[in-house]
Amino acid sequence: MQELTTTSYGVVRDADFFDKAKGFKAITGAEVISIDRENKSIQIKMLKTGETIERFYNKLVIATGATPKNPPFPVTENPAVRTFTRPDDAVNFRKLAETGQIGNAVIIGGGFIGCELMGACAELWGIETTLIEAENQLLPFAMDPEMAVIARREARRNNINLLTGARVEKIDTDTDGNPTVHVQGHEPIKTDYAFLCLGVHPNVSLAEHCGLDIGKTGGIKVNEFMQTSDSDIYAGGDCVESTHQLSGKEFYIPMGSLANRHGRVIAEHIAGVGRPFPGALGAVLIKIFEMNIGSVGLSETTALKNDINAMAVWGSFPDKPDYYPESSTFTLKMIFDKDNGHLLGLQAAGKGDICRRIDSFSVHLQYKATIDNLLDFEHGYSPPYSEALDPLHHLAGMAKAKLEGYEIANPEEIRNYLEDSIIRLDVRETDEANAEPAPLKSNGETFPIKTIPLKELTNRLDELDRNKEIHIICKRGVRSYQAARILKSAGFERIKILGGGVQALL
Amino acid sequence: MQELTTTSYGVVRDADFFDKAKGFKAITGAEVISIDRENKSIQIKMLKTGETIERFYNKLVIATGATPKNPPFPVTENPAVRTFTRPDDAVNFRKLAETGQIGNAVIIGGGFIGCELMGACAELWGIETTLIEAENQLLPFAMDPEMAVIARREARRNNINLLTGARVEKIDTDTDGNPTVHVQGHEPIKTDYAFLCLGVHPNVSLAEHCGLDIGKTGGIKVNEFMQTSDSDIYAGGDCVESTHQLSGKEFYIPMGSLANRHGRVIAEHIAGVGRPFPGALGAVLIKIFEMNIGSVGLSETTALKNDINAMAVWGSFPDKPDYYPESSTFTLKMIFDKDNGHLLGLQAAGKGDICRRIDSFSVHLQYKATIDNLLDFEHGYSPPYSEALDPLHHLAGMAKAKLEGYEIANPEEIRNYLEDSIIRLDVRETDEANAEPAPLKSNGETFPIKTIPLKELTNRLDELDRNKEIHIICKRGVRSYQAARILKSAGFERIKILGGGVQALL
Repeated sequence: MQELTTTSYGVVRDADFFDKAKGFKAITGAEVISIDRENKSIQIKMLKTGETIERFYNKLVIATGATPKNPPFPVTENPAVRTFTRPDDAVNFRKLAETGQIGNAVIIGGGFIGCELMGACAELWGIETTLIEAENQLLPFAMDPEMAVIARREARRNNINLLTGARVEKIDTDTDGNPTVHVQGHEPIKTDYAFLCLGVHPNVSLAEHCGLDIGKTGGIKVNEFMQTSDSDIYAGGDCVESTHQLSGKEFYIPMGSLANRHGRVIAEHIAGVGRPFPGALGAVLIKIFEMNIGSVGLSETTALKNDINAMAVWGSFPDKPDYYPESSTFTLKMIFDKDNGHLLGLQAAGKGDICRRIDSFSVHLQYKATIDNLLDFEHGYSPPYSEALDPLHHLAGMAKAKLEGYEIANPEEIRNYLEDSIIRLDVRETDEANAEPAPLKSNGETFPIKTIPLKELTNRLDELDRNKEIHIICKRGVRSYQAARILKSAGFERIKILGGGVQALL
Repeated sequence: MQELTTTSYGVVRDADFFDKAKGFKAITGAEVISIDRENKSIQIKMLKTGETIERFYNKLVIATGATPKNPPFPVTENPAVRTFTRPDDAVNFRKLAETGQIGNAVIIGGGFIGCELMGACAELWGIETTLIEAENQLLPFAMDPEMAVIARREARRNNINLLTGARVEKIDTDTDGNPTVHVQGHEPIKTDYAFLCLGVHPNVSLAEHCGLDIGKTGGIKVNEFMQTSDSDIYAGGDCVESTHQLSGKEFYIPMGSLANRHGRVIAEHIAGVGRPFPGALGAVLIKIFEMNIGSVGLSETTALKNDINAMAVWGSFPDKPDYYPESSTFTLKMIFDKDNGHLLGLQAAGKGDICRRIDSFSVHLQYKATIDNLLDFEHGYSPPYSEALDPLHHLAGMAKAKLEGYEIANPEEIRNYLEDSIIRLDVRETDEANAEPAPLKSNGETFPIKTIPLKELTNRLDELDRNKEIHIICKRGVRSYQAARILKSAGFERIKILGGGVQALL
């Protein structure tokens, strides 16, 4: 825990450090109880002595942070039912876990904190872990359902007991003092420890009491210079509401990275340099076991909710050429505006290097890029690090193909949409297709798949019934597109490509 | 070798593959000997039969690639003196190396191919390797001298015999048939194998003979749609000259990544879609032993040559928080335009994840970004992957500080510029400074360094002589900046900060 509050060179970031190294005075053990905007003063209660002091300001900055949300169900007080926000929470739990006092744990909430905690419990401490999420998917804030499935599969592979779409009714304590979690439609779950990871809400009571505007999302309303409705009072960090750079809509996104940048914008504005904060794009990353997951921009779900005519493509890619043994695969989903070709968002999941793609896509979004701009991206190329075309170039190409009428479909949609009137055409080599069959099934029933390697397709078109819809499958989604071109020019009309290929289904 | 010419799913990319899978006819074993622009035809010599055939075109694409440059010194013909360009070259050498027939090798040329080959020789096959470069540094095309030093140190750590600023006079063969490399001012170097890695030049004779314009750099001149001076003839790949997106000047940069994108622009233009190629930014990556090295945009040297008022800052950074055991450090140099704050280039070297930064910086360059735009970059944040502020944010902050008058100096400059009139002030903690002393020396003589930890600086200012220039040193360059602020506000005037800190000197 000490490590988290020291600088990288081992000096504790305490009041003395800020005074000596940074040149400003920090008053600790002190709670601001009110702001008097008329007199430009704040009232401070000194926690040790109980005395109240007053300080005057020219400019004031509110950075009151956020607090875990209260559960929407009754919880019997129990030291083994906790939120997970402060370093104390971690230290506490760690002590119990490391001394073998936790055999199993329940995590309520499948957002970022819940998912990270799930990894820590199962991997670090070998705890039998259950995760309960009210939505039908993990990470609903950042990922569309068919991408979140990749996180779900990874959790299952790591023996997490996962309940999604599950509503907790209450947590009570059984006779031996342990918490019991009651979930609608399930047997009660007795556990050694229960975590409440239901997200956070901004701490705004101080701002609210002195009459500052609070936004619809619950955060303090600020303008582009991070000024509240009182221009002498700024606010930043987890207590403010953000504006999304793409939708222009307000949203709440408590992220340390944004908080740091807020700080600079506020300091510069106070110092007389008027550089605005551009709003947020929602760039997030999370590690779930061996899986790297990330997202930036608008999800397809959010874009559609905002009446944006969103369209998406999917692809799976190696993060460096296949002939490198350390090459790893990941799946990307790119969301764009069908009407004007503007990029909207990118979602990534897999073992390979996704950070690089989330970051470079984020920069494209910063400049309101279009699909064509993405084709002009010059990535760093050299075989130990990348292929001659970056995955983002391929996604841009797929987006153009989709706009021209090639149907590139959602991996989960293809997996389950398996009526008998459909031909499932695998265009991989026969060896490949046999070694790793496409996991397509509906209600437990596996449907037959016809394999015709891409190279043989032109000569074997008569094996395909022109009256049926054809779903084309390959390893990553690239060959399917070639195959679709061949079928289209041969007059086939109802064709769908499995976006991301078999790789996206594993 | 087969792996390099097959698709990722194991199908050989031969004429039949292109015909069946991609739908176009490839004629192999055929050399185009002339282009008749008037009749819009090409004359093809069939290499097997010797017969000449003619084909007519509406649109023609020239992609004749590049050939290794001839050495500017005499070379006696010898099978053990070879260039390194075609897969054959690798296969040939590999056979000898793997059967223990190569005890030592000489590589002439310290550009990309030479440096990669150096790694392969020493690491893969344990060959005693000498590298000879005419310039005073490795990688002169991509890196400024003080950043190239990082590659040099890595080569030395791996026992490479490195001769820079060294001119080869000739290569002859000694009595036992082995090559001997004669270098000005050195003893002749007897070797088992010598590689000529002197770069490549574009193959333009076909284009030249039919009267197409050739650029000053030697590549075929093309417009933004990759059309040559004859609008029905396109050219792309390693045979064309590129325009730099930032300087607007022509340069020659043969890269597979650009060639791939040329292909798309050409195909789209022929198909009637007029999307221009934006020019090149020169994004390159190279792995030298354990060191990741990369560059994008203009180097400081090139920018100054182009009369751009270039300025630079340096910083060293961990690629993820220090408390992660797998955190690695790298050093970055950012070049920007002093007159208007536009970003010009980024150079990176170190063990950490540099690709991510090269790529995201490249996107900023694509949109002609300024330092302020870089502060608005929203990177993907989560502790397993990154810190709350990205290294690019820190560089932007340093650039602003430098524009305000803080002198941030070149690591190599500080290391060697050690007159007695200068105080070298180390502001790291005493333990830290003792554990890893700053390697400062001039002519073998180590100069005294005064250590005052940052936190004690305010109280110990009287230990510093105000008449002397002060060079501030820390681990990565961040604390030095804080220290400079303290000294400046105490009235010290002649202050320099070691960009990148001690980390940049290791």
